[in-house]
Amino acid sequence: MNIDLIRAAAARLEGRTRRTPLLSSPFLDEIAGRRVLIKPECLQHTGSFKFRGAWSALTALTPQERAKGVFAYSSGNHAQGVALAAKLNGVHATILMPRDAPKLKVANTRALGAKVVLYDRASENREEIGVALAKESGQTLIKPYDNPQVIAGQGTTGLEIAQQADGCANAQVLVPCGGGGLTSGIALALEAKAPQMQVRPVEPIGFDDVARSLISGTIQTNPRTTGSLCDAIITPAPGDLTFPILQRLCGPALTVSDEDALRAMAAAFTRLKIVIEPGGAVALAAALYHPDTITGDTVIVVASGGNVDADLFTQALSRFGDGS
Amino acid sequence: MNIDLIRAAAARLEGRTRRTPLLSSPFLDEIAGRRVLIKPECLQHTGSFKFRGAWSALTALTPQERAKGVFAYSSGNHAQGVALAAKLNGVHATILMPRDAPKLKVANTRALGAKVVLYDRASENREEIGVALAKESGQTLIKPYDNPQVIAGQGTTGLEIAQQADGCANAQVLVPCGGGGLTSGIALALEAKAPQMQVRPVEPIGFDDVARSLISGTIQTNPRTTGSLCDAIITPAPGDLTFPILQRLCGPALTVSDEDALRAMAAAFTRLKIVIEPGGAVALAAALYHPDTITGDTVIVVASGGNVDADLFTQALSRFGDGS
Repeated sequence: MNIDLIRAAAARLEGRTRRTPLLSSPFLDEIAGRRVLIKPECLQHTGSFKFRGAWSALTALTPQERAKGVFAYSSGNHAQGVALAAKLNGVHATILMPRDAPKLKVANTRALGAKVVLYDRASENREEIGVALAKESGQTLIKPYDNPQVIAGQGTTGLEIAQQADGCANAQVLVPCGGGGLTSGIALALEAKAPQMQVRPVEPIGFDDVARSLISGTIQTNPRTTGSLCDAIITPAPGDLTFPILQRLCGPALTVSDEDALRAMAAAFTRLKIVIEPGGAVALAAALYHPDTITGDTVIVVASGGNVDADLFTQALSRFGDGS
Repeated sequence: MNIDLIRAAAARLEGRTRRTPLLSSPFLDEIAGRRVLIKPECLQHTGSFKFRGAWSALTALTPQERAKGVFAYSSGNHAQGVALAAKLNGVHATILMPRDAPKLKVANTRALGAKVVLYDRASENREEIGVALAKESGQTLIKPYDNPQVIAGQGTTGLEIAQQADGCANAQVLVPCGGGGLTSGIALALEAKAPQMQVRPVEPIGFDDVARSLISGTIQTNPRTTGSLCDAIITPAPGDLTFPILQRLCGPALTVSDEDALRAMAAAFTRLKIVIEPGGAVALAAALYHPDTITGDTVIVVASGGNVDADLFTQALSRFGDGS
C-alpha cells in the first residue's frame, strides 16, 4: 500500500466519483471553538464514501474476474457502493447483509441490481460465510476494507482534502472508523500530500477496537457487534491490512456516544443542510462536543455517509431540534 | 443587465461563495423518467443562493455607502445572505422580516449580527416600510431581486450550471421563482454560455404571479402573500427589472402543490442526502411528479434553499417516508 496505488485509483475514479465540496458554518465554528471544515461524503454516489473503494476495486479486476462476478459482505454502505459500481461496469454482484441492517440500505442494494443474501449478525460470522460462498461461486470477494484497491479508492478522499484544505497544514483530520479502510486510505494520501496533518479515528463508545488496538499495539476486537446506532462502523476489529497503516500514521483515537452522534446529525441538518447517518456523524460529534480532546485552530471532519432511515433521523431532530 | 455584470460578480465571488456540486441519483432518474441533475444551493453559505447576490451587492458599494450600512427586507433567505455578507465586509445591516417567517431564519439573521425589525405580512407593505426606513437611516436598500448586482450574483449559479452540465446543451432548467432574481440571473448567464438551454420558473399553486405575467405579457400580482409552505418564493409579483428578462428568456412556467414540495423534500432526504425547504423544492417536485410537462432527456433543477424548521421537515418525512 502506497501513494502510487491511490494516485492510480484517483485516475480511474476521475469523472466517475463525485468530488465532494468542503463545507463549514460560523454556527458550528462557534460550538466547536475553532474552525470546522466538513467533507460530506454523504453526497457521494450511493450516499457514502464506499462508492470510491468499490469503483476502484471493480475497475482493477481482470476481464476473467469481471465475467465471474463479485461478492461482498456489508452492513449496507459497502453493499450499495459495490452494487452500483458493479452495475455501471456490467458485473454481476452478490451481497451478504445482516438481517438487522437499515431497511433503506437493503432495499437500495437490491434496487441497484445486486442479489442480496441475509445473515444473522449475532450468531453468524460474515467473513466465514463470505469466503465460503465466494469460493463456491467463483466470484471475487471484495472485502469492505482489507483490500488494497478498496483502501486506495477511499484514499482519494484524502487527496481531495489535501487540495481543498490547502491553508490548514497542521489540522487534525477526524475520520469515522470501522475497519479502517477510509481512515488508512486518507492517512496514506495525507502522508504524501499534507504530512503535517494528523489523522484521528473516531468510534462509538463500547466499539472502540481501533482505539484499544492503537494503545496496545496489537489488533483488539469488539466484545459485541450489535448495540450501537452507528451500524456503519461497528466492525469486529481493524483489518490485517489497515491496522499497520493506522498504527504507523494515525491516532490517538476518539470515542463518542450514540447521543453525541444524533445531536451532530441535528446540527448538520440545521447548519450544513446535509443528511448524515449516526456512524457518519461521529467525527463531527467529536469536533463539536469534545473540543478539549482536539488541538489546533482548524479541525477537518469527514461525514462519511448519509444512509439513515427517516424514523431515526426524525428521532434525532425531535430530541435535539436545531442541534445547537 | 448583461453577461458582463455577471462575469464581474463571479470575479468578486471567487473563493467567497461555494461552488455547489451537481448531484444526481438513479432512483430520482427512475421517478422522473429522465436524467435529473440537481444544483443544491441549500449547500451555499447561509443555506441558500441568496448569499451570492448579497455578496455581489455588498462588494459593489462605495466606501461611503459601506460606512452608512445596508437595509434589506426578506422572508428570511435574503436576510441571512445580507447579514453574513455584511458581517464579512464589516458593514452594519438592518433587516425587515415578516412576523411569520420560519423561526430559524429570524434567529440566524440575528445571530449573524444584523438588527432585525419585524412586520406583519398580511397588513403591511414591506417595500413601503423598507424604502421609508432606508431613507430615514441613510442606509442603502439592498432589494431582494430588483437590484442589478443582486441579479448578477444569482446569475453566477447559471455560469456554474453551464460548466457543470456541459454535455446537456438542450436541457430544460427548472428554477424556484419568487421575485425572479435567481431565475433571471441564471437565464442571462445561460443565454451567453448555453443558449440552447430553456429556463423555466416554478411556483407554488395559487402564487403563480410569474406564470400569469408571462402569459399576459404584463406584471401580475398574487392575490395573497400568505397561505403556502413555500415562504421563500411567495413574493407579491415579479420585479420591474426581472420581469423583462423573464419575458425575453424564460418560460413556460410550472406550478406545483405544497404537497408535491414536501414529497420532493423527502425524496431529496433519501436520495441526495440534502435538506431542502419547501420553496427550494418546487423545481425538483416539478421534475419528479410532473414529468409530462417537461421535455428532453435531461432536466436540471435548482434546489434553491434549505432553511426549514425541524418540525416541518419531520412532517415531510412522516407523510412521505422515503419519498419514492
